[in-house]
Amino acid sequence: MILDKVNAPEDLKNLSTSEMSTLADEMRELIINKVNTIGGHCGPNLGIAEATIALHYVFNSPTDKIVFDVSHQCYPHKLVTGRKEGFLSPENYMKYTGYTAPEESNHDLFKVGHTSTSVSLATGLAKARDLKGENYNVIALIGDGSLSGGEALEGLDNAAVLGSNIIIVVNDNDMSIAPNEGGLYKNLKTLRETNGQAECNFFKSLGFDYLLIKEGNNIEKLIEGFRKVKDINHPVVVHIVTEKGHGLKAATENKEMFHWILPNTLDENKEIIVSNSTPSEDWNSITKDYIVNKIKEDDSVVVVNAATPGVFGFDANYRKELGSHYVDVGIAEEHAVAFSSGIAKGGAKPILNVMSSFIQRTYDQLSQDLCLNNSPLTLLIWWGGISGADATHLCTFDMAMMGNIPNLVYMAPTNKEEYLGMLDWSVNQTQYPTAIRVPSCGLNSTGIIDTTDYSKEINKFKTIKSGEQIAIIGLGNFFHLGKQVAEEIKTKLNINATLINPRFITGIDEELLDSLKNNHDVVITLEDGELNGGFGEKISRYYGNSDMKVLNYGAYKEFTDRIPLEELYKRYRLNPEQIVEDASKLVKAGV
Amino acid sequence: MILDKVNAPEDLKNLSTSEMSTLADEMRELIINKVNTIGGHCGPNLGIAEATIALHYVFNSPTDKIVFDVSHQCYPHKLVTGRKEGFLSPENYMKYTGYTAPEESNHDLFKVGHTSTSVSLATGLAKARDLKGENYNVIALIGDGSLSGGEALEGLDNAAVLGSNIIIVVNDNDMSIAPNEGGLYKNLKTLRETNGQAECNFFKSLGFDYLLIKEGNNIEKLIEGFRKVKDINHPVVVHIVTEKGHGLKAATENKEMFHWILPNTLDENKEIIVSNSTPSEDWNSITKDYIVNKIKEDDSVVVVNAATPGVFGFDANYRKELGSHYVDVGIAEEHAVAFSSGIAKGGAKPILNVMSSFIQRTYDQLSQDLCLNNSPLTLLIWWGGISGADATHLCTFDMAMMGNIPNLVYMAPTNKEEYLGMLDWSVNQTQYPTAIRVPSCGLNSTGIIDTTDYSKEINKFKTIKSGEQIAIIGLGNFFHLGKQVAEEIKTKLNINATLINPRFITGIDEELLDSLKNNHDVVITLEDGELNGGFGEKISRYYGNSDMKVLNYGAYKEFTDRIPLEELYKRYRLNPEQIVEDASKLVKAGV
Repeated sequence: MILDKVNAPEDLKNLSTSEMSTLADEMRELIINKVNTIGGHCGPNLGIAEATIALHYVFNSPTDKIVFDVSHQCYPHKLVTGRKEGFLSPENYMKYTGYTAPEESNHDLFKVGHTSTSVSLATGLAKARDLKGENYNVIALIGDGSLSGGEALEGLDNAAVLGSNIIIVVNDNDMSIAPNEGGLYKNLKTLRETNGQAECNFFKSLGFDYLLIKEGNNIEKLIEGFRKVKDINHPVVVHIVTEKGHGLKAATENKEMFHWILPNTLDENKEIIVSNSTPSEDWNSITKDYIVNKIKEDDSVVVVNAATPGVFGFDANYRKELGSHYVDVGIAEEHAVAFSSGIAKGGAKPILNVMSSFIQRTYDQLSQDLCLNNSPLTLLIWWGGISGADATHLCTFDMAMMGNIPNLVYMAPTNKEEYLGMLDWSVNQTQYPTAIRVPSCGLNSTGIIDTTDYSKEINKFKTIKSGEQIAIIGLGNFFHLGKQVAEEIKTKLNINATLINPRFITGIDEELLDSLKNNHDVVITLEDGELNGGFGEKISRYYGNSDMKVLNYGAYKEFTDRIPLEELYKRYRLNPEQIVEDASKLVKAGV
Repeated sequence: MILDKVNAPEDLKNLSTSEMSTLADEMRELIINKVNTIGGHCGPNLGIAEATIALHYVFNSPTDKIVFDVSHQCYPHKLVTGRKEGFLSPENYMKYTGYTAPEESNHDLFKVGHTSTSVSLATGLAKARDLKGENYNVIALIGDGSLSGGEALEGLDNAAVLGSNIIIVVNDNDMSIAPNEGGLYKNLKTLRETNGQAECNFFKSLGFDYLLIKEGNNIEKLIEGFRKVKDINHPVVVHIVTEKGHGLKAATENKEMFHWILPNTLDENKEIIVSNSTPSEDWNSITKDYIVNKIKEDDSVVVVNAATPGVFGFDANYRKELGSHYVDVGIAEEHAVAFSSGIAKGGAKPILNVMSSFIQRTYDQLSQDLCLNNSPLTLLIWWGGISGADATHLCTFDMAMMGNIPNLVYMAPTNKEEYLGMLDWSVNQTQYPTAIRVPSCGLNSTGIIDTTDYSKEINKFKTIKSGEQIAIIGLGNFFHLGKQVAEEIKTKLNINATLINPRFITGIDEELLDSLKNNHDVVITLEDGELNGGFGEKISRYYGNSDMKVLNYGAYKEFTDRIPLEELYKRYRLNPEQIVEDASKLVKAGV
């Protein structure tokens, strides 16, 4: 293998262009094997192999700084920067994260996994260079899909006036995760079709110099282009046109599906394995069914999301079925919230879908555009909860972030019927900005349709089982943990604990909390998210002037990185045994 | 007065263009008198008078929807939509807010005061209109300064592909609050200079139709232009060129100063009143002095802000003095944080300044670009605290928003020397992403220079006075309230209370909290911000399993709107008498 000779970027400088082309193919083969074994970003990495090699051939990392946007196209970079062992043998597949990580290599500048960040970060590096009188190239590598994010657009506007060397490589594979949405993509198309000659050029309008490399999977053309801009003394955009999924037929023909794949997507012939099993009902499918039926009865219902339809199971057929009732705004979460607030003010019924980790990209719009205006939005937050995810994709912070914004009604259902009941109430009501944390635990059903008018029960908790001495308030996903804790308390302490489903994240039921004082000594709160600033602390504060003991359980304030869930649960004392051990010390009457 | 005849927009339709020009002058006169009496936005409102009249003449509000961005250019709009009494006599000056407010008029669609929001909100209204099969014009009125915000840029990218009527009126007065920064402003200049004919057009590159109205203070030209786009069936940008401060010489010659003016800025001849008094030392001046001196000893120090230099006292002369060590990124808070994180990673020393209310615009960049990467930024948060501000400019949420982000060290100094000690420590250290909440109380000095190495004291509280039974933890601004509470406790309860300066917002000193258990029954926390998700709740949680009683004081979770501070303090029980009344009920040993 050519790769045998490459242990660091400087080794590339001894290769011929044809060897580099072969190397790109070798890298793709390794990437395909790895992602088909453990899952991971596929298409973006396959397309960027040649450009990565050419960048490292022309520039001198780490002296020259290459900043990867969102960094799910960094596998080829890892392969040539001393981390190939993470791709060569399955036992090392988990050794490196799927994102750039400074702790792994000095060729990685930042830990990034959210999108649209590279231009601003690179502009900062360039400014530091200029202040210190140093001299090197700063390169941001950003995908076309990431360009639509406000952070990237703000960054471009500012990078353009830096006045010194900065090279923005726009990797245009004509796809976001799903197809691109937004006006600037028409301009990229025009630029591709006119060989970069169109006068009306988005990048030039911002003041950038501009270069198109139309054959972005051709090593020679890439080297030629990058050499032109190396050591440039002003901001330039290098627009490279690559093929997402290059070199893998299944991926080029199914670009959205192959953005990120699950293990065992391909058979030994690299054909897609078609599953014959009927997909079982899950949170996605019941949401999709609800929406389709709701649109049939109300033409003003519209589903909005920001470039991640796959997270919600909104596949191409489904999107087509929804027609004008489906809007993908592209990577643009701030716009998504304000746009949806506008839709609601206009008298239609938006259902905005965002993954927990990405709702972080739009605090002010939630506060000002939405909640200050009391627009009756339905916001579905997906995947919220403690997980073994990469540090960049944690879903533990949404409740602390959103839960303290005035006016928002943030709800946490605990089963299928309750979820659908809350969802339908939310869509129909016109008073409250509403969010629902879609459970991330398994789908469970009571069989009893929920027709609660939640307008009359805002911030009212629901007692599921009345007991004494110990009360357990199990929020959302962790209601089920609460049940287990109650059982463990019965077994170990012979106490019939009270079990409560609080239903609301953004308020407390003072009446119910007061009533617990009559015959309870301890209140336990359980939440599947960060404790700091979260739900449980509000209960602790409320009981601060009383004799009630309160134990709050949830995640610590920390960025965890691919730590197994079981280990995190142990660390956070989220097991029934640990919780009962803590509680037993506080119960007044002896066991 | 012509204005006598105008009680609603339809009354404008009976006026001649020369009457409308006169009306614009009358409105300016009223606006000048009002803002010179009670303070307010001056320049933006003076410049937009003609365009407001022309918009209401051509379009039919409220059937046609006009969405104001940031809305500090809405005074003329208020004057012609039934609210002129708020400008005619000083006793009514406070009757209406300085921003659009749906509760005041059905011509106001949204309550907005943060910037860059109008395009997304308007696109949402247009989408609702289309879904419901309705037929009206949707107009967003956005200033050139607001265009650089990520939300506006995301909105433009999406509005361009709406496929139906939306009219974006860009009010280009060639100024943000301060001079514009960013590449797109060069394009606006080119468009102005080429009569809108330049091929390379930022708006067209996004797919908009485009019309320039170069004489944006000329009623006839404006009417002619707006008529051209009325009922248009696709997205269009109408670029109008206006003069900020039009009609007031002092304002056109001092555009930045007259963006927002204090009462009594002008004398009876509308000349600027020059103050002869030496400005006294304040938080701004000591910060400015510190920065200037620090740059002299360290060339890598750089000050960053996002379009509001006036908030920090960074006037034009000061900015000139700092030279390349000063960067205004324009309205682009997300970029400001990521850019500063990049600067820090590049080995230089960024000091980023943001007003509390506006830090809300960049949660994810704080979390991902900054804190996940542990970049040693110094972030100064200004004006944080409970206030009688407009609902759109509250500064009560920063601690709850930022305080729960992992890795951030957010500090709350209580006096001049402590502030400067923390600031210097923060700038020099290279380990922590650091924020400092610049006090918003009066400048107070101990006279003792603070040389604490805070690296060794992260999350360590400082006991200022040891006592017993009751401990008071007074955070930042409210340390002084804590002192008063201690005195009141001594007087009323004859108890020597313990007084603690916690110094850190983002952590708790468990050792100190444990030690308080020995001889205290009650802990009181005081914070100048929202209680929910804030500092005090972390103390309550910590003591949840103990006998310690905890009382948390701070703001409720609510958007308040121009409520006098005294009234808010009473509501939140933030007076020593109220606090001691509460505490006295919890002290074990009787008084």
